[in-house]
Amino acid sequence: MKYYGFWRSLAACRVRIALALKGVNAEEISVNLMQGEQLKPEYRAVNPLAVVPALILDDGSTLFESMAIIEYLDETHAQPSLLPKDPKGRARVRGLAQIVACDGHPLLVPRVRNYLEKELKIDEAARTRWCQHWLMEALKAVETHLAGNKETGRYCHGNSPTLADICVATQVFGAKFFNCDTAPVPTVMRVFSECMKLDAFDKSHPLKQPGAPKEVKH
Amino acid sequence: MKYYGFWRSLAACRVRIALALKGVNAEEISVNLMQGEQLKPEYRAVNPLAVVPALILDDGSTLFESMAIIEYLDETHAQPSLLPKDPKGRARVRGLAQIVACDGHPLLVPRVRNYLEKELKIDEAARTRWCQHWLMEALKAVETHLAGNKETGRYCHGNSPTLADICVATQVFGAKFFNCDTAPVPTVMRVFSECMKLDAFDKSHPLKQPGAPKEVKH
Repeated sequence: MKYYGFWRSLAACRVRIALALKGVNAEEISVNLMQGEQLKPEYRAVNPLAVVPALILDDGSTLFESMAIIEYLDETHAQPSLLPKDPKGRARVRGLAQIVACDGHPLLVPRVRNYLEKELKIDEAARTRWCQHWLMEALKAVETHLAGNKETGRYCHGNSPTLADICVATQVFGAKFFNCDTAPVPTVMRVFSECMKLDAFDKSHPLKQPGAPKEVKH
Repeated sequence: MKYYGFWRSLAACRVRIALALKGVNAEEISVNLMQGEQLKPEYRAVNPLAVVPALILDDGSTLFESMAIIEYLDETHAQPSLLPKDPKGRARVRGLAQIVACDGHPLLVPRVRNYLEKELKIDEAARTRWCQHWLMEALKAVETHLAGNKETGRYCHGNSPTLADICVATQVFGAKFFNCDTAPVPTVMRVFSECMKLDAFDKSHPLKQPGAPKEVKH
């Protein structure tokens, strides 16, 4: 098993964390999104969508979309489970994950920021405010669900990390890149600090990947 | 079981189709997104995120995010299944669904269009182009996966409708609202026409809901 990622991609980071939590060895092949490598024919032959992550199975099949990949990993590598057993709990975890993966993160990806810049002529300061706004909107929505909910434990749902924590932690990485004020989301940040005590989260941090700079300026 | 929706919401439409495919009776309560009803305290008490859909279970629990809701319905009402049995097939169906639900649709929702208008001062013509662009980007990505893939059948994956068809069909509803040229996505449109032969899709169409106009102009 191998996968295509990039140090800065928050979606690839989700898959990296899931693989680490599952203890699955998979080689990460870097696709430099900042140099447009995802648009080259070599990568389009792997994933015609020209996005990361893509997971390549040993039989050569390509899986795409980070959450579909993580659900696949969860179905094929049972322990530790990244979803609770009860349908209502699973719905809560998937819902929290999707607040990030559907409502929040898609507004920040390179193709959207490029459209804002090239087509709508939005300047860099306004593009930064755009990213900060949507990063925090998603985290505030998660905060509303986590704060005071009896299902919230050490992590987003109970006392073991789930798909929700993977998504929320990567969104916090993004919020830190953009210097967002995280004071309005204390429960999110408390859960985040629990996640970062786990080696699977810590070693998967974008800035700890090959090719990453020491710090990120947007 | 009841759920909060709105005739125009494509995410609510997904849940409406899933309920109809499953044969589950659930009352739809309309929240007028165009009049800002989702922002009123009455609705925020139901769903603090102020978005639709929200599914209310008989025990009073609230489920949120359309795909988490549909996975819940699939886990608790087994027939007809909205996901294939094999993990790789499930990953393909979830991946196709997420191209729409994560990459495509989130860019079109009212809060994003409001931000473009109010914060970035983007005029209506450019906002319409924005919507058309992202609607078709997602459908073209789906087309790339469907065309010539042996897993593609009468529907996106094989010969029974899945979560992927639900998401793709609702994105086509959106493309029609915005008068997009769908010529570049012939396989998508062929699958869409198969979906629309099913009563569950046909009766769930946005323009067939109470309060909907006869036609949509953006």
